[in-house]
Amino acid sequence: MKIAIDAMGGDQAPQVIVQGVERARDEFTDLEFSLFGKQREIQKYLKKADRIEIIQTDSQILGTDEPMKAIRHKKDSSLVLAAQAVKHHEADALYSLGNTGALLAAGIFIVGRLPQVARPALMPILPSLNNPQGFCYLDAGANAESKVNYLEQWAVMGSVYAQQVKGIAKPRVALLNNGSEFDKGDRTHQTAYQTLQALPDLNFIGNLEADQLLVCEADVIVTDGFTGNAVLKTMEGSVKVLLRQLKQALLNNGARAKLGAWLAQPALKSLQQFFDVASYGGAVLMGTQAPVVKSHGASDARTVYYALSQLRMMYNKGMLDQVTDYFQKNNVNH
Amino acid sequence: MKIAIDAMGGDQAPQVIVQGVERARDEFTDLEFSLFGKQREIQKYLKKADRIEIIQTDSQILGTDEPMKAIRHKKDSSLVLAAQAVKHHEADALYSLGNTGALLAAGIFIVGRLPQVARPALMPILPSLNNPQGFCYLDAGANAESKVNYLEQWAVMGSVYAQQVKGIAKPRVALLNNGSEFDKGDRTHQTAYQTLQALPDLNFIGNLEADQLLVCEADVIVTDGFTGNAVLKTMEGSVKVLLRQLKQALLNNGARAKLGAWLAQPALKSLQQFFDVASYGGAVLMGTQAPVVKSHGASDARTVYYALSQLRMMYNKGMLDQVTDYFQKNNVNH
Repeated sequence: MKIAIDAMGGDQAPQVIVQGVERARDEFTDLEFSLFGKQREIQKYLKKADRIEIIQTDSQILGTDEPMKAIRHKKDSSLVLAAQAVKHHEADALYSLGNTGALLAAGIFIVGRLPQVARPALMPILPSLNNPQGFCYLDAGANAESKVNYLEQWAVMGSVYAQQVKGIAKPRVALLNNGSEFDKGDRTHQTAYQTLQALPDLNFIGNLEADQLLVCEADVIVTDGFTGNAVLKTMEGSVKVLLRQLKQALLNNGARAKLGAWLAQPALKSLQQFFDVASYGGAVLMGTQAPVVKSHGASDARTVYYALSQLRMMYNKGMLDQVTDYFQKNNVNH
Repeated sequence: MKIAIDAMGGDQAPQVIVQGVERARDEFTDLEFSLFGKQREIQKYLKKADRIEIIQTDSQILGTDEPMKAIRHKKDSSLVLAAQAVKHHEADALYSLGNTGALLAAGIFIVGRLPQVARPALMPILPSLNNPQGFCYLDAGANAESKVNYLEQWAVMGSVYAQQVKGIAKPRVALLNNGSEFDKGDRTHQTAYQTLQALPDLNFIGNLEADQLLVCEADVIVTDGFTGNAVLKTMEGSVKVLLRQLKQALLNNGARAKLGAWLAQPALKSLQQFFDVASYGGAVLMGTQAPVVKSHGASDARTVYYALSQLRMMYNKGMLDQVTDYFQKNNVNH
């Protein structure tokens, strides 16, 4: 298996990428890598070239670039060339830490969607106090418009992922909705409930409200992309503000609070660990012709390593074939 | 002004309600109150009957009751009879700490909506680090379906509230959307952006993403009720889980963490104060023929007092007339 990597995306590119790649290379003898980026910068960090090729690229897509424009006009960028390699079967999967919108566009329009899939969805794995493996959450925002048949396909793809990659026999699938009863929500969500309940071999456990996310027992949570995006951003914003306020309160309330903060430091670290989802891997773009994964721009080498392991599992387990088979067998086409 | 109060709703009813009412009665000589509930229980806590009448009711709506069924079948409940008093002009405003859905239903179907308003919306006031007065947030979930003209009316109502009740000359109104650029979101939100920008005398400042809520400078944030509900619940759930985890981490990490927690206690209290929005008042049901306010079931007497002050402001400032005038003048009808 060969993974095409945009080595120039992310805050600490290419250093953390090279480090993560070397760790994955040393651990998994079945993996090869194509690193797209500035050869000289990559080589500065590369210890050993085994199973790692470097493809020199001259431009890169910035976090501030408009995604569709960027992939159209920056044809020689590290991301676009890595995606082209996957398209032309020179590589089997795509990975980037850069501009999320540009990666979504490259995944959908260059790698291409599976013919049976109406709309690919972005799927991060999020933490829950009551599910040590976390839960698959899709669509986190690849689509602003939502339709019942999108939600249906996302439920299936999330469930197949949880089964194949996380090894859960009967993944529990829930629908994010504004009430727990079956008739809650707008028409799209009411119909989605009925549709998910009727899907064969899907372990649909009903509606879930957003205040239950971080304590849910579900393995997969399906949401329309508009709500899914808003909810994910709310979670990130709330946690960030709360931790920042906590820190300020401990530092600005005199010597007593400062001493308390120092004594409590190990405990506070354990709190932050709950939100550290690096070991779950990155966010998967579900529904493309080859596995595509995105990690946060601020990721470290460890996160890169986990995301590469995740891509390897998706590939080795034949996850995309499983999805295609299910869609064909059960006539869940778009 | 007379306020009709469901004295049986909430976790500590009628005690905290009676205490809050007495404080408001003592402070505001222009207020009278009708308390609907069990006379004997209310009298147990009532110190002085001045300007407070008690109307004996024999049943009450529970938190677990299905809202529409409850207001149809429990005709002799404290909430339904309080709402009837407002409908028949025996009182000027309605207040409850009980079942939110039942209060919404009583507000819309018994008190009645303003004829120009398509759909009343639920509007809590939420905290922001960059707006000491907090921001008006609507619709928080009274409506599952969303249309552009609902959002338009909610923007106007939120803005009039911020002007009249909070005394802000030109309230900054933002649209909750999944990107900051004007063309972000689904068709409803794209059109809503254009519509809000075109409204006369509305200080529309553009889109706001959900991770910016707790740090926003807006005075009013407009959202469709489905997303608005999910986002609010996410915020509540995230804060609750984080504070609980923090507590556990400090208690379960040995003597050092425990001592740290004890020393840091005043600082942690100051953190919780940020999320204490009692002084902002309760959640307003915007768009009914008389002011309707809901407080959280777990509220204390202080929260009740603030909500009653809020109802008094809405009434004294003629907020509903201002809304009606704006809709007529600018042809914002449903």
